[in-house]
Amino acid sequence: MVMLMKVVLGSGAQHMRDEFLAKAAGYDKELVETEIKTFPDGEKYVRVLGEGDEAIVVQSTFRPQDEHLMELLLLGDALREKGFKHLKAVVPYLAYSRQDRVTKEGEPISVRAVLRTLSLYYDEFYVFDLHNPETLKFFPKKAVNLSPAKAIARYFKEKLENGIILAPDRGALERARAVAGELGLEFSHFEKKRISPTEVQMQPVDVDVKGKNVLIVDDIISTGGTMIRAANLLKEMGAGKVFVAATHGVFAKGAIERVSKAVDELAVTNTIPTEVSKISLVEEILKL
Amino acid sequence: MVMLMKVVLGSGAQHMRDEFLAKAAGYDKELVETEIKTFPDGEKYVRVLGEGDEAIVVQSTFRPQDEHLMELLLLGDALREKGFKHLKAVVPYLAYSRQDRVTKEGEPISVRAVLRTLSLYYDEFYVFDLHNPETLKFFPKKAVNLSPAKAIARYFKEKLENGIILAPDRGALERARAVAGELGLEFSHFEKKRISPTEVQMQPVDVDVKGKNVLIVDDIISTGGTMIRAANLLKEMGAGKVFVAATHGVFAKGAIERVSKAVDELAVTNTIPTEVSKISLVEEILKL
Repeated sequence: MVMLMKVVLGSGAQHMRDEFLAKAAGYDKELVETEIKTFPDGEKYVRVLGEGDEAIVVQSTFRPQDEHLMELLLLGDALREKGFKHLKAVVPYLAYSRQDRVTKEGEPISVRAVLRTLSLYYDEFYVFDLHNPETLKFFPKKAVNLSPAKAIARYFKEKLENGIILAPDRGALERARAVAGELGLEFSHFEKKRISPTEVQMQPVDVDVKGKNVLIVDDIISTGGTMIRAANLLKEMGAGKVFVAATHGVFAKGAIERVSKAVDELAVTNTIPTEVSKISLVEEILKL
Repeated sequence: MVMLMKVVLGSGAQHMRDEFLAKAAGYDKELVETEIKTFPDGEKYVRVLGEGDEAIVVQSTFRPQDEHLMELLLLGDALREKGFKHLKAVVPYLAYSRQDRVTKEGEPISVRAVLRTLSLYYDEFYVFDLHNPETLKFFPKKAVNLSPAKAIARYFKEKLENGIILAPDRGALERARAVAGELGLEFSHFEKKRISPTEVQMQPVDVDVKGKNVLIVDDIISTGGTMIRAANLLKEMGAGKVFVAATHGVFAKGAIERVSKAVDELAVTNTIPTEVSKISLVEEILKL
Protein backbone atom coordinates (compact mmCIF):
# COMPACT_ATOMS: atom_id res chain seq x y z
CA MET A 1 0.00 0.00 0.00
CA VAL A 2 1.39 3.37 -0.98
CA MET A 3 0.94 6.09 1.61
CA LEU A 4 -0.14 9.28 -0.12
CA MET A 5 1.37 12.49 1.09
CA LYS A 6 -1.09 14.12 3.48
CA VAL A 7 -2.22 17.73 3.29
CA VAL A 8 -3.22 19.41 6.55
CA LEU A 9 -4.90 22.82 6.50
CA GLY A 10 -4.70 25.17 9.46
CA SER A 11 -7.34 27.81 10.03
CA GLY A 12 -5.22 30.20 7.94
CA ALA A 13 -5.80 27.96 4.91
CA GLN A 14 -9.48 27.10 5.28
CA HIS A 15 -10.29 29.53 2.47
CA MET A 16 -8.41 27.16 0.13
CA ARG A 17 -10.15 24.03 1.40
CA ASP A 18 -12.64 23.42 -1.40
CA GLU A 19 -9.93 23.70 -4.02
CA PHE A 20 -7.58 21.38 -2.11
CA LEU A 21 -10.41 18.86 -1.75
CA ALA A 22 -11.13 18.97 -5.47
CA LYS A 23 -7.54 18.82 -6.71
CA ALA A 24 -5.42 16.92 -4.14
CA ALA A 25 -5.93 13.48 -5.67
CA GLY A 26 -4.69 14.76 -9.04
CA TYR A 27 -1.35 15.45 -7.37
CA ASP A 28 -1.21 12.13 -5.48
CA LYS A 29 -2.02 13.84 -2.22
CA GLU A 30 -4.79 13.45 0.30
CA LEU A 31 -6.44 16.07 2.46
CA VAL A 32 -6.86 14.98 6.09
CA GLU A 33 -9.39 16.38 8.49
CA THR A 34 -8.51 18.60 11.41
CA GLU A 35 -10.44 19.86 14.40
CA ILE A 36 -9.39 23.37 15.37
CA LYS A 37 -11.07 25.46 18.03
CA THR A 38 -10.44 27.98 20.78
CA PHE A 39 -11.11 27.09 24.44
CA PRO A 40 -13.20 29.52 26.51
CA ASP A 41 -10.00 30.79 28.17
CA GLY A 42 -8.52 31.68 24.76
CA GLU A 43 -6.13 28.74 24.28
CA LYS A 44 -6.06 27.01 20.91
CA TYR A 45 -6.96 23.37 20.46
CA VAL A 46 -5.98 21.34 17.42
CA ARG A 47 -6.44 17.73 16.47
CA VAL A 48 -5.36 15.99 13.27
CA LEU A 49 -7.06 12.89 11.93
CA GLY A 50 -5.40 10.46 9.52
CA GLU A 51 -2.11 8.61 9.45
CA GLY A 52 1.00 8.77 7.31
CA ASP A 53 4.71 9.41 7.01
CA GLU A 54 4.82 12.72 5.18
CA ALA A 55 2.60 15.76 5.42
CA ILE A 56 2.35 19.26 4.03
CA VAL A 57 0.87 21.64 6.57
CA VAL A 58 -0.57 24.76 4.95
CA GLN A 59 -1.07 27.74 7.23
CA SER A 60 -0.99 31.32 6.11
CA THR A 61 -0.13 33.65 8.98
CA PHE A 62 -2.22 36.72 8.37
CA ARG A 63 -4.08 38.33 11.27
CA PRO A 64 -4.39 37.05 14.04
CA GLN A 65 -0.76 36.24 13.25
CA ASP A 66 0.36 34.88 16.61
CA GLU A 67 -2.61 32.52 16.85
CA HIS A 68 -1.95 31.21 13.37
CA LEU A 69 1.72 30.67 14.22
CA MET A 70 0.85 28.85 17.45
CA GLU A 71 -1.56 26.62 15.55
CA LEU A 72 1.19 25.75 13.09
CA LEU A 73 3.42 24.65 15.99
CA LEU A 74 0.60 22.65 17.58
CA LEU A 75 -0.18 20.92 14.27
CA GLY A 76 3.51 20.04 13.97
CA ASP A 77 3.52 18.63 17.49
CA ALA A 78 0.37 16.60 16.84
CA LEU A 79 1.78 15.13 13.61
CA ARG A 80 5.09 14.19 15.26
CA GLU A 81 3.14 12.60 18.11
CA LYS A 82 1.30 10.54 15.47
CA GLY A 83 4.62 9.37 14.05
CA PHE A 84 4.84 11.49 10.88
CA LYS A 85 8.48 11.50 9.82
CA HIS A 86 8.75 14.35 7.35
CA LEU A 87 6.85 17.62 7.62
CA LYS A 88 6.73 20.50 5.16
CA ALA A 89 5.38 23.84 6.34
CA VAL A 90 3.78 25.93 3.62
CA VAL A 91 3.22 29.45 4.91
CA PRO A 92 1.87 31.39 1.92
CA TYR A 93 2.05 34.71 3.78
CA LEU A 94 4.69 34.84 6.49
CA ALA A 95 3.94 37.12 9.44
CA TYR A 96 6.82 39.24 10.71
CA SER A 97 8.61 38.95 7.35
CA ARG A 98 9.10 42.73 7.22
CA GLN A 99 10.77 42.78 10.64
CA ASP A 100 13.93 41.47 9.03
CA ARG A 101 16.64 43.69 10.48
CA VAL A 102 17.53 45.78 13.52
CA THR A 103 16.78 49.38 12.59
CA LYS A 104 16.90 50.73 16.15
CA GLU A 105 19.19 49.28 18.77
CA GLY A 106 17.35 46.88 21.06
CA GLU A 107 15.03 45.44 18.42
CA PRO A 108 14.78 41.73 17.62
CA ILE A 109 14.94 40.26 14.13
CA SER A 110 11.41 39.00 14.49
CA VAL A 111 11.35 36.90 11.32
CA ARG A 112 14.37 35.03 12.70
CA ALA A 113 12.43 34.13 15.85
CA VAL A 114 9.54 32.85 13.75
CA LEU A 115 11.65 30.76 11.39
CA ARG A 116 13.80 29.27 14.15
CA THR A 117 10.65 28.30 16.00
CA LEU A 118 9.08 26.61 12.99
CA SER A 119 12.27 24.62 12.42
CA LEU A 120 11.61 22.79 15.70
CA TYR A 121 8.80 20.86 14.02
CA TYR A 122 9.25 21.23 10.27
CA ASP A 123 11.88 19.79 7.92
CA GLU A 124 11.11 22.05 4.98
CA PHE A 125 9.72 25.55 4.76
CA TYR A 126 7.91 27.17 1.82
CA VAL A 127 6.65 30.73 1.49
CA PHE A 128 5.47 32.88 -1.41
CA ASP A 129 7.27 36.06 -2.41
CA LEU A 130 9.08 36.68 0.85
CA HIS A 131 9.77 40.34 1.64
CA ASN A 132 13.50 39.70 2.08
CA PRO A 133 14.50 36.29 0.66
CA GLU A 134 17.84 36.45 2.51
CA THR A 135 15.98 35.85 5.75
CA LEU A 136 15.36 32.23 4.70
CA LYS A 137 18.83 31.57 6.14
CA PHE A 138 17.20 31.73 9.58
CA PHE A 139 15.42 28.45 8.82
CA PRO A 140 18.32 26.05 9.26
CA LYS A 141 16.97 23.39 6.89
CA LYS A 142 15.50 23.43 3.37
CA ALA A 143 13.70 26.74 2.81
CA VAL A 144 12.22 27.91 -0.48
CA ASN A 145 10.81 31.24 -1.64
CA LEU A 146 8.10 30.36 -4.19
CA SER A 147 7.14 32.68 -7.03
CA PRO A 148 3.52 33.52 -7.79
CA ALA A 149 4.56 34.79 -11.28
CA LYS A 150 3.05 31.87 -13.23
CA ALA A 151 -0.28 32.15 -11.43
CA ILE A 152 -0.43 35.93 -11.87
CA ALA A 153 0.49 35.60 -15.57
CA ARG A 154 -2.14 32.89 -16.10
CA TYR A 155 -4.82 35.07 -14.52
CA PHE A 156 -4.10 38.18 -16.61
CA LYS A 157 -3.02 36.46 -19.87
CA GLU A 158 -6.24 37.15 -21.84
CA LYS A 159 -6.38 40.77 -20.70
CA LEU A 160 -2.89 41.74 -21.76
CA GLU A 161 -2.99 41.85 -25.54
CA ASN A 162 -0.56 44.62 -26.53
CA GLY A 163 0.46 44.56 -22.89
CA ILE A 164 3.38 45.57 -20.76
CA ILE A 165 4.32 44.67 -17.18
CA LEU A 166 5.54 47.37 -14.80
CA ALA A 167 7.03 47.26 -11.34
CA PRO A 168 6.20 50.18 -9.03
CA ASP A 169 9.91 50.67 -8.27
CA ARG A 170 13.29 49.27 -9.26
CA GLY A 171 13.37 46.96 -6.25
CA ALA A 172 10.31 45.12 -7.57
CA LEU A 173 11.70 44.73 -11.09
CA GLU A 174 12.49 41.01 -10.85
CA ARG A 175 8.86 40.25 -10.09
CA ALA A 176 7.76 42.18 -13.22
CA ARG A 177 10.43 40.40 -15.27
CA ALA A 178 9.16 37.01 -14.11
CA VAL A 179 5.52 37.74 -14.98
CA ALA A 180 6.53 39.30 -18.33
CA GLY A 181 8.68 36.26 -19.08
CA GLU A 182 5.68 33.95 -18.68
CA LEU A 183 3.70 36.05 -21.15
CA GLY A 184 6.43 37.06 -23.61
CA LEU A 185 5.79 40.74 -22.89
CA GLU A 186 8.11 43.65 -22.29
CA PHE A 187 8.59 45.00 -18.78
CA SER A 188 9.99 47.98 -16.97
CA HIS A 189 9.63 49.85 -13.71
CA PHE A 190 8.70 53.23 -12.35
CA GLU A 191 11.22 55.55 -10.83
CA LYS A 192 10.79 58.64 -8.76
CA LYS A 193 11.92 61.90 -10.34
CA ARG A 194 12.20 65.18 -8.49
CA ILE A 195 10.29 67.71 -10.61
CA SER A 196 10.56 70.64 -8.16
CA PRO A 197 12.16 71.20 -4.75
CA THR A 198 8.98 69.93 -3.09
CA GLU A 199 7.51 67.58 -5.66
CA VAL A 200 8.44 64.06 -6.71
CA GLN A 201 6.77 62.37 -9.64
CA MET A 202 6.75 58.69 -10.63
CA GLN A 203 7.71 57.90 -14.21
CA PRO A 204 7.90 54.64 -16.13
CA VAL A 205 11.46 54.16 -17.32
CA ASP A 206 12.36 53.68 -21.01
CA VAL A 207 8.95 52.57 -22.23
CA ASP A 208 6.08 54.14 -24.13
CA VAL A 209 2.83 53.14 -22.47
CA LYS A 210 0.58 54.96 -24.95
CA GLY A 211 -2.19 52.63 -26.11
CA LYS A 212 -0.73 49.73 -24.09
CA ASN A 213 -2.58 47.63 -21.57
CA VAL A 214 -0.49 47.75 -18.38
CA LEU A 215 -0.20 45.34 -15.46
CA ILE A 216 1.58 46.73 -12.39
CA VAL A 217 2.82 43.98 -10.06
CA ASP A 218 4.10 44.28 -6.49
CA ASP A 219 4.63 41.97 -3.53
CA ILE A 220 2.39 43.64 -0.94
CA ILE A 221 -0.42 46.15 -1.25
CA SER A 222 -1.19 47.90 2.01
CA THR A 223 -2.60 51.43 1.64
CA GLY A 224 -2.41 51.20 -2.17
CA GLY A 225 -1.25 54.82 -2.46
CA THR A 226 1.64 54.05 -4.80
CA MET A 227 -0.55 51.91 -7.04
CA ILE A 228 -3.18 54.64 -7.31
CA ARG A 229 -0.60 57.30 -8.21
CA ALA A 230 0.95 54.98 -10.79
CA ALA A 231 -2.43 54.14 -12.33
CA ASN A 232 -3.47 57.77 -12.57
CA LEU A 233 -0.19 58.67 -14.24
CA LEU A 234 -0.52 55.84 -16.77
CA LYS A 235 -4.03 56.97 -17.72
CA GLU A 236 -2.72 60.53 -18.20
CA MET A 237 0.02 59.16 -20.43
CA GLY A 238 -2.56 57.53 -22.66
CA ALA A 239 -2.30 53.92 -21.49
CA GLY A 240 -5.15 51.54 -22.36
CA LYS A 241 -6.39 49.38 -19.50
CA VAL A 242 -4.48 49.46 -16.22
CA PHE A 243 -4.45 46.34 -14.04
CA VAL A 244 -2.90 45.93 -10.61
CA ALA A 245 -1.73 42.62 -9.12
CA ALA A 246 0.07 41.77 -5.91
CA THR A 247 1.03 38.62 -4.09
CA HIS A 248 -0.11 39.61 -0.60
CA GLY A 249 -3.22 41.71 -0.08
CA VAL A 250 -2.43 43.17 3.35
CA PHE A 251 -4.99 45.87 2.73
CA ALA A 252 -5.45 48.81 5.08
CA LYS A 253 -9.05 49.81 5.72
CA GLY A 254 -10.74 51.10 2.56
CA ALA A 255 -7.71 50.33 0.37
CA ILE A 256 -9.47 47.71 -1.77
CA GLU A 257 -12.19 50.21 -2.71
CA ARG A 258 -9.75 53.06 -3.37
CA VAL A 259 -7.44 51.00 -5.60
CA SER A 260 -10.36 49.30 -7.38
CA LYS A 261 -11.80 52.69 -8.30
CA ALA A 262 -8.49 53.88 -9.75
CA VAL A 263 -7.80 50.86 -11.99
CA ASP A 264 -9.56 48.55 -14.44
CA GLU A 265 -8.99 45.52 -12.25
CA LEU A 266 -7.27 44.72 -8.96
CA ALA A 267 -6.38 41.11 -8.19
CA VAL A 268 -4.17 39.54 -5.52
CA THR A 269 -3.32 35.93 -4.77
CA ASN A 270 -5.03 33.93 -2.06
CA THR A 271 -2.12 33.97 0.41
CA ILE A 272 -4.50 36.20 2.37
CA PRO A 273 -8.26 35.83 1.86
CA THR A 274 -9.87 39.09 0.67
CA GLU A 275 -12.65 39.92 -1.76
CA VAL A 276 -10.06 40.44 -4.52
CA SER A 277 -7.97 37.31 -3.80
CA LYS A 278 -8.80 35.91 -7.22
CA ILE A 279 -5.46 34.33 -8.09
CA SER A 280 -5.16 30.87 -6.56
CA LEU A 281 -1.83 29.34 -5.53
CA VAL A 282 -3.30 25.99 -4.52
CA GLU A 283 -1.87 24.12 -7.51
CA GLU A 284 1.57 25.63 -6.80
CA ILE A 285 1.29 24.16 -3.30
CA LEU A 286 0.03 20.78 -4.49
CA LYS A 287 3.14 20.47 -6.68
CA LEU A 288 5.40 20.48 -3.60
CA MET B 1 32.08 47.87 37.37
CA VAL B 2 29.67 45.15 38.36
CA MET B 3 26.89 44.51 35.86
CA LEU B 4 23.64 44.07 37.75
CA MET B 5 21.28 41.41 36.57
CA LYS B 6 18.66 43.05 34.37
CA VAL B 7 14.91 42.54 34.76
CA VAL B 8 12.79 42.86 31.61
CA LEU B 9 9.01 42.98 31.87
CA GLY B 10 6.80 41.91 28.97
CA SER B 11 3.28 43.24 28.64
CA GLY B 12 2.10 40.23 30.68
CA ALA B 13 4.05 41.60 33.66
CA GLN B 14 3.28 45.31 33.47
CA HIS B 15 0.89 44.94 36.40
CA MET B 16 3.95 44.13 38.54
CA ARG B 17 6.00 47.07 37.26
CA ASP B 18 5.69 49.49 40.18
CA GLU B 19 6.67 46.82 42.67
CA PHE B 20 9.66 45.72 40.56
CA LEU B 21 10.77 49.35 40.26
CA ALA B 22 10.55 49.82 44.01
CA LYS B 23 12.24 46.58 45.05
CA ALA B 24 14.71 45.53 42.31
CA ALA B 25 17.71 47.39 43.74
CA GLY B 26 17.24 45.61 47.09
CA TYR B 27 17.90 42.33 45.27
CA ASP B 28 20.88 43.67 43.25
CA LYS B 29 18.82 43.80 40.11
CA GLU B 30 17.89 46.58 37.73
CA LEU B 31 14.72 47.05 35.74
CA VAL B 32 15.34 48.00 32.11
CA GLU B 33 12.90 49.80 29.89
CA THR B 34 11.07 48.17 27.01
CA GLU B 35 8.99 49.51 24.17
CA ILE B 36 6.17 47.13 23.26
CA LYS B 37 3.44 47.89 20.76
CA THR B 38 1.26 46.34 18.08
CA PHE B 39 1.61 47.46 14.45
CA PRO B 40 -1.57 48.43 12.55
CA ASP B 41 -1.48 45.04 10.77
CA GLY B 42 -1.50 43.20 14.12
CA GLU B 43 2.18 42.24 14.37
CA LYS B 44 3.96 42.77 17.68
CA TYR B 45 6.92 45.09 18.04
CA VAL B 46 9.32 44.94 20.98
CA ARG B 47 12.46 46.84 21.82
CA VAL B 48 14.67 46.47 24.90
CA LEU B 49 16.85 49.26 26.22
CA GLY B 50 19.87 48.68 28.45
CA GLU B 51 22.92 46.46 28.29
CA GLY B 52 24.17 43.50 30.26
CA ASP B 53 25.16 39.85 30.39
CA GLU B 54 22.29 38.31 32.32
CA ALA B 55 18.59 39.06 32.31
CA ILE B 56 15.39 37.79 33.83
CA VAL B 57 12.48 38.22 31.44
CA VAL B 58 9.13 38.18 33.24
CA GLN B 59 6.09 37.49 31.10
CA SER B 60 2.92 35.87 32.33
CA THR B 61 1.02 34.22 29.50
CA PHE B 62 -2.61 34.81 30.32
CA ARG B 63 -5.00 35.94 27.59
CA PRO B 64 -4.10 36.84 24.80
CA GLN B 65 -1.82 33.85 25.38
CA ASP B 66 -0.31 33.52 21.91
CA GLU B 67 0.58 37.20 21.75
CA HIS B 68 2.23 37.03 25.14
CA LEU B 69 4.21 33.96 24.08
CA MET B 70 5.33 35.61 20.84
CA GLU B 71 6.45 38.67 22.79
CA LEU B 72 8.52 36.45 25.06
CA LEU B 73 10.29 34.97 22.02
CA LEU B 74 10.85 38.42 20.51
CA LEU B 75 12.27 39.74 23.80
CA GLY B 76 14.62 36.74 23.87
CA ASP B 77 15.73 37.45 20.31
CA ALA B 78 16.29 41.14 21.06
CA LEU B 79 18.38 40.35 24.16
CA ARG B 80 20.52 37.80 22.31
CA GLU B 81 21.00 40.34 19.51
CA LYS B 82 22.26 42.77 22.18
CA GLY B 83 24.77 40.20 23.39
CA PHE B 84 23.11 39.00 26.60
CA LYS B 85 24.67 35.65 27.47
CA HIS B 86 22.32 34.12 30.00
CA LEU B 87 18.55 34.50 29.95
CA LYS B 88 16.01 33.33 32.50
CA ALA B 89 12.36 33.21 31.51
CA VAL B 90 9.93 33.69 34.38
CA VAL B 91 6.44 32.78 33.24
CA PRO B 92 4.28 33.10 36.36
CA TYR B 93 1.23 31.62 34.62
CA LEU B 94 2.06 29.26 31.76
CA ALA B 95 -0.47 29.10 28.94
CA TYR B 96 -1.28 25.63 27.60
CA SER B 97 -0.10 24.02 30.84
CA ARG B 98 -3.33 22.00 31.08
CA GLN B 99 -2.85 20.58 27.58
CA ASP B 100 -0.27 18.19 28.97
CA ARG B 101 -1.26 14.86 27.45
CA VAL B 102 -2.94 13.27 24.44
CA THR B 103 -6.48 12.43 25.55
CA LYS B 104 -7.85 11.89 22.03
CA GLU B 105 -5.71 10.50 19.26
CA GLY B 106 -4.42 13.25 16.99
CA GLU B 107 -3.94 15.86 19.68
CA PRO B 108 -0.63 17.60 20.37
CA ILE B 109 0.96 17.96 23.79
CA SER B 110 0.62 21.70 23.58
CA VAL B 111 2.68 22.53 26.66
CA ARG B 112 5.57 20.61 25.07
CA ALA B 113 5.41 22.84 22.00
CA VAL B 114 5.48 25.93 24.20
CA LEU B 115 8.39 24.80 26.37
CA ARG B 116 10.48 23.56 23.44
CA THR B 117 9.96 26.90 21.74
CA LEU B 118 11.02 28.92 24.77
CA SER B 119 14.16 26.83 25.10
CA LEU B 120 15.40 28.31 21.81
CA TYR B 121 16.07 31.61 23.57
CA TYR B 122 16.13 30.92 27.30
CA ASP B 123 18.64 29.04 29.44
CA GLU B 124 16.42 28.70 32.50
CA PHE B 125 12.67 28.49 32.91
CA TYR B 126 10.64 29.36 36.01
CA VAL B 127 6.89 29.02 36.51
CA PHE B 128 4.59 29.10 39.54
CA ASP B 129 2.49 26.12 40.54
CA LEU B 130 2.52 24.30 37.21
CA HIS B 131 -0.56 22.19 36.51
CA ASN B 132 1.55 19.08 35.86
CA PRO B 133 5.13 19.53 37.10
CA GLU B 134 6.26 16.51 35.09
CA THR B 135 5.87 18.56 31.93
CA LEU B 136 8.95 20.59 32.90
CA LYS B 137 10.92 17.77 31.26
CA PHE B 138 9.92 19.30 27.90
CA PHE B 139 12.19 22.26 28.66
CA PRO B 140 15.56 20.63 27.98
CA LYS B 141 17.54 22.89 30.34
CA LYS B 142 17.09 24.08 33.93
CA ALA B 143 13.37 24.31 34.68
CA VAL B 144 11.86 25.06 38.08
CA ASN B 145 8.31 24.92 39.43
CA LEU B 146 8.13 27.65 42.10
CA SER B 147 5.77 27.48 45.05
CA PRO B 148 3.54 30.37 46.04
CA ALA B 149 3.01 28.78 49.48
CA LYS B 150 5.15 31.29 51.43
CA ALA B 151 3.41 34.26 49.82
CA ILE B 152 -0.05 32.82 50.39
CA ALA B 153 0.82 31.98 54.01
CA ARG B 154 2.20 35.49 54.59
CA TYR B 155 -0.96 37.06 53.24
CA PHE B 156 -3.37 35.02 55.39
CA LYS B 157 -1.19 34.66 58.52
CA GLU B 158 -3.06 37.22 60.68
CA LYS B 159 -6.46 35.87 59.68
CA LEU B 160 -5.85 32.25 60.59
CA GLU B 161 -5.78 32.18 64.34
CA ASN B 162 -7.21 28.79 65.31
CA GLY B 163 -6.94 28.00 61.62
CA ILE B 164 -6.76 25.00 59.35
CA ILE B 165 -5.74 24.65 55.69
CA LEU B 166 -7.82 22.50 53.36
CA ALA B 167 -7.28 21.31 49.80
CA PRO B 168 -10.41 20.94 47.64
CA ASP B 169 -9.34 17.40 46.68
CA ARG B 170 -6.63 14.89 47.44
CA GLY B 171 -4.64 15.90 44.34
CA ALA B 172 -4.19 19.38 45.77
CA LEU B 173 -3.07 18.15 49.21
CA GLU B 174 0.62 18.97 48.80
CA ARG B 175 -0.23 22.63 48.24
CA ALA B 176 -2.27 22.69 51.48
CA ARG B 177 0.55 20.95 53.31
CA ALA B 178 3.04 23.57 52.12
CA VAL B 179 0.93 26.52 53.22
CA ALA B 180 0.12 24.83 56.56
CA GLY B 181 3.80 24.13 57.08
CA GLU B 182 4.64 27.83 56.76
CA LEU B 183 2.03 28.66 59.42
CA GLY B 184 2.40 25.69 61.75
CA LEU B 185 -1.26 24.74 61.20
CA GLU B 186 -2.97 21.43 60.57
CA PHE B 187 -4.20 20.58 57.08
CA SER B 188 -6.41 18.12 55.29
CA HIS B 189 -8.45 17.80 52.12
CA PHE B 190 -11.97 17.27 50.91
CA GLU B 191 -13.12 14.06 49.33
CA LYS B 192 -16.22 13.28 47.36
CA LYS B 193 -18.63 10.86 48.99
CA ARG B 194 -21.61 9.32 47.23
CA ILE B 195 -24.58 9.89 49.55
CA SER B 196 -27.27 8.50 47.21
CA PRO B 197 -27.30 6.93 43.73
CA THR B 198 -27.54 10.42 42.20
CA GLU B 199 -25.88 12.65 44.75
CA VAL B 200 -22.25 13.25 45.63
CA GLN B 201 -21.21 15.35 48.60
CA MET B 202 -17.82 16.84 49.47
CA GLN B 203 -16.52 16.16 52.98
CA PRO B 204 -13.40 17.28 54.80
CA VAL B 205 -11.40 14.20 55.76
CA ASP B 206 -10.43 13.45 59.37
CA VAL B 207 -10.76 16.97 60.74
CA ASP B 208 -13.23 18.85 62.85
CA VAL B 209 -13.77 22.28 61.35
CA LYS B 210 -16.22 23.48 63.99
CA GLY B 211 -15.18 26.92 65.24
CA LYS B 212 -12.07 26.88 63.06
CA ASN B 213 -11.05 29.52 60.54
CA VAL B 214 -10.45 27.69 57.26
CA LEU B 215 -8.32 28.54 54.25
CA ILE B 216 -9.01 26.46 51.14
CA VAL B 217 -6.13 26.57 48.64
CA ASP B 218 -6.06 25.41 45.05
CA ASP B 219 -3.91 26.00 41.97
CA ILE B 220 -6.48 27.44 39.58
CA ILE B 221 -9.91 28.93 40.11
CA SER B 222 -11.99 29.03 36.97
CA THR B 223 -15.77 28.82 37.53
CA GLY B 224 -15.27 28.61 41.31
CA GLY B 225 -18.06 26.03 41.65
CA THR B 226 -16.04 23.64 43.80
CA MET B 227 -14.88 26.43 46.08
CA ILE B 228 -18.45 27.68 46.59
CA ARG B 229 -19.74 24.18 47.43
CA ALA B 230 -16.86 23.65 49.84
CA ALA B 231 -17.40 27.01 51.55
CA ASN B 232 -21.14 26.44 51.97
CA LEU B 233 -20.49 23.04 53.48
CA LEU B 234 -17.93 24.41 55.92
CA LYS B 235 -20.34 27.09 57.10
CA GLU B 236 -23.03 24.40 57.63
CA MET B 237 -20.52 22.41 59.64
CA GLY B 238 -19.96 25.34 61.96
CA ALA B 239 -16.65 26.65 60.67
CA GLY B 240 -15.64 30.22 61.59
CA LYS B 241 -14.34 32.33 58.75
CA VAL B 242 -13.79 30.69 55.37
CA PHE B 243 -11.07 32.04 53.10
CA VAL B 244 -10.23 30.92 49.58
CA ALA B 245 -6.82 31.29 47.92
CA ALA B 246 -5.48 30.12 44.61
CA THR B 247 -2.32 30.64 42.63
CA HIS B 248 -3.86 31.41 39.26
CA GLY B 249 -7.09 33.37 38.96
CA VAL B 250 -8.27 32.18 35.54
CA PHE B 251 -11.75 33.35 36.40
CA ALA B 252 -14.74 32.62 34.17
CA LYS B 253 -17.15 35.52 33.75
CA GLY B 254 -18.88 36.37 37.03
CA ALA B 255 -16.82 33.87 39.05
CA ILE B 256 -15.05 36.47 41.19
CA GLU B 257 -18.39 37.88 42.35
CA ARG B 258 -19.93 34.44 42.96
CA VAL B 259 -17.00 33.13 45.00
CA SER B 260 -16.58 36.42 46.89
CA LYS B 261 -20.19 36.27 47.99
CA ALA B 262 -19.83 32.71 49.31
CA VAL B 263 -16.67 33.25 51.40
CA ASP B 264 -15.18 35.73 53.85
CA GLU B 265 -12.30 36.56 51.54
CA LEU B 266 -11.04 35.46 48.15
CA ALA B 267 -7.43 36.18 47.21
CA VAL B 268 -5.23 34.93 44.38
CA THR B 269 -1.64 35.69 43.46
CA ASN B 270 -0.68 38.18 40.79
CA THR B 271 0.36 35.61 38.16
CA ILE B 272 -2.77 36.90 36.41
CA PRO B 273 -3.95 40.45 37.13
CA THR B 274 -7.51 40.50 38.49
CA GLU B 275 -9.30 42.59 41.09
CA VAL B 276 -8.54 39.92 43.73
CA SER B 277 -4.86 39.36 42.79
CA LYS B 278 -3.78 40.58 46.19
CA ILE B 279 -0.90 38.17 46.83
CA SER B 280 2.27 39.39 45.17
CA LEU B 281 4.99 37.05 43.93
CA VAL B 282 7.37 39.82 42.88
CA GLU B 283 9.82 39.19 45.73
CA GLU B 284 9.84 35.47 44.90
CA ILE B 285 10.87 36.46 41.36
CA LEU B 286 13.49 38.96 42.51
CA LYS B 287 15.18 36.20 44.51
CA LEU B 288 15.95 34.24 41.32
